[in-house]
Amino acid sequence: MSNEPATEPRWLDDEEQHAWQAYLHATTLLEDHLDRQLQRDAGMPHVYYGLLVQLSRAPRRRMRMTELAQNAKITRSRLSHAVARLEKNGWVRRENCASDKRGQNAYLTDEGLRVLEKAAPGHVNAVRAAIFDRLTPEQIGQLDEICCMIADGLQPQGADLPWLR
Amino acid sequence: MSNEPATEPRWLDDEEQHAWQAYLHATTLLEDHLDRQLQRDAGMPHVYYGLLVQLSRAPRRRMRMTELAQNAKITRSRLSHAVARLEKNGWVRRENCASDKRGQNAYLTDEGLRVLEKAAPGHVNAVRAAIFDRLTPEQIGQLDEICCMIADGLQPQGADLPWLR
Repeated sequence: MSNEPATEPRWLDDEEQHAWQAYLHATTLLEDHLDRQLQRDAGMPHVYYGLLVQLSRAPRRRMRMTELAQNAKITRSRLSHAVARLEKNGWVRRENCASDKRGQNAYLTDEGLRVLEKAAPGHVNAVRAAIFDRLTPEQIGQLDEICCMIADGLQPQGADLPWLR
Repeated sequence: MSNEPATEPRWLDDEEQHAWQAYLHATTLLEDHLDRQLQRDAGMPHVYYGLLVQLSRAPRRRMRMTELAQNAKITRSRLSHAVARLEKNGWVRRENCASDKRGQNAYLTDEGLRVLEKAAPGHVNAVRAAIFDRLTPEQIGQLDEICCMIADGLQPQGADLPWLR
């Protein structure tokens, strides 16, 4: 609307537009694919699976809820909702934090670990078939670098980050 | 559990695991960021914005619902829900297809076009700041190629694709 160059947005050029569409297609299809696979074979969505993996790797299979949200890059309310569902399944329990009365830990139960171990082979096969078996080692390195650049840029100090909301 | 090598899943190695975590972090953070920006500045989530963009580029600002779902890589039920909301806002209308009595078109209203044109500069700035201003032209080409590889692999003939469900 204005003729001032400073106010005109820099629209994406053809290469950028093509890459952006490819990104949207790949990420949307992959999330749908992994979600369906895990729902069908393990009765949980992809985000729940990620929470179980995190807990399984933590000392004593326990983590602070705030840390769990930060690592999963999700909001505290989304985490609370997910953990409530996982608790209902008997896969996770919450407990008050010994060192901090306001804090809460989540821990992975034996049953949760069993479910995770059963789900893991199918999930890793799906991730491999969709990504790692299709890319060269060089492309895997490029993907890693590009994704780290994007993730780093979206987590500046003081930003409106999901796990702080 | 078994000693047969054929049944043991091929777990991700360290490089693959690192790239996979980076991918999950980048994609989760970016979707949250773009959704928040569009909700705040234009009153719609990212997926709705994508639908308005598609319609704005179509001849006579009209598209078949099935085609719209396929391009957005979403299920028909998710599309129906989104279009119902967009219709309520007066941004999109549905009409029966002249050539196929079972088919439906969606079209972008003048009001929808106005809303899209107002939202576009802020959205493109957010996409640029998060991705394209952070990557070299070479990396943009790599991202494009990698995403096309992943998206192509997830759309085989006869697969359980979102828009066919």
